[in-house]
Amino acid sequence: MEQSTLADALKMSVQVALGAWDIQNSRLVKLIESLPEGRLSDEIAPGKNTGVYVLGHLVAVSDNMLPVLGLGERLFPHLDEVFLTNPEKSGLAKPPVSELMANLHAVNKRLAEGFATLSPANWLERHTAVSEADFAKEPHRNKLNLLLNRTGHIAYHLGQLVWLK
Amino acid sequence: MEQSTLADALKMSVQVALGAWDIQNSRLVKLIESLPEGRLSDEIAPGKNTGVYVLGHLVAVSDNMLPVLGLGERLFPHLDEVFLTNPEKSGLAKPPVSELMANLHAVNKRLAEGFATLSPANWLERHTAVSEADFAKEPHRNKLNLLLNRTGHIAYHLGQLVWLK
Repeated sequence: MEQSTLADALKMSVQVALGAWDIQNSRLVKLIESLPEGRLSDEIAPGKNTGVYVLGHLVAVSDNMLPVLGLGERLFPHLDEVFLTNPEKSGLAKPPVSELMANLHAVNKRLAEGFATLSPANWLERHTAVSEADFAKEPHRNKLNLLLNRTGHIAYHLGQLVWLK
Repeated sequence: MEQSTLADALKMSVQVALGAWDIQNSRLVKLIESLPEGRLSDEIAPGKNTGVYVLGHLVAVSDNMLPVLGLGERLFPHLDEVFLTNPEKSGLAKPPVSELMANLHAVNKRLAEGFATLSPANWLERHTAVSEADFAKEPHRNKLNLLLNRTGHIAYHLGQLVWLK
């Protein structure tokens, strides 16, 4: 292919990945907004996590993408203790759903702003969760890979949250 | 970027997407193989689909990728009636798990062989589920996009199947 065609193709491949990220996030927001008031506090299935826990977990994981992708500091590091370090049954108080949803929108906005600063080539660079030495051996552990991984993670939990409908 | 660097970057972006596909499929197989005999026949949660139904559904959807990506004919089109066209409660007899797992391995093998014939640029071409006219307007509806979409679909159902553990 010619150089311009190659550049366009690379750009498109990144756009498709960003589109997949957007779709999973849109589905998440749409699903949660479709649930009746209070429904998210229920266990998704008997003995399983509540919807609130899964939502907080997803916000914390997305928030963590900011430093890992080199896009800035965490916005809500306090979420980790309740939603990442500890399981549902920890007894730790959860923030209200309205606060978590505001957090989710803020994180996704900040991520979108950060994504817009990355060139297609930047997406194939190392993310901060892999060392320079490891990246030299495993160049697929790049930012694009992390994006796809996190996109799949949202889809995974969406498959659970949908049962609250 | 230089032409050779661009070509390498494009190749890497496709490799990352193929890696994500492989990971979700590996997780699916590993999860199912970890379940006790017969467990897959249980409802995943009360009133929800059984594991067998979800497995058959995933095999049918993956099998359908062969024609949509232009990689050949379906291997197991008979699965559609039980696992795509009709819901769990249709009362239609389901094939045994051992047969569905053999189908899954055959489909994934055929897909891998097909993927190996596609150049990075081929992945950005139209898939057969979108018309040429629509593709001209929406060039992101390419084969790579379909791959990411189907990868997310497996992750979605993995989030459910994991509750059989």
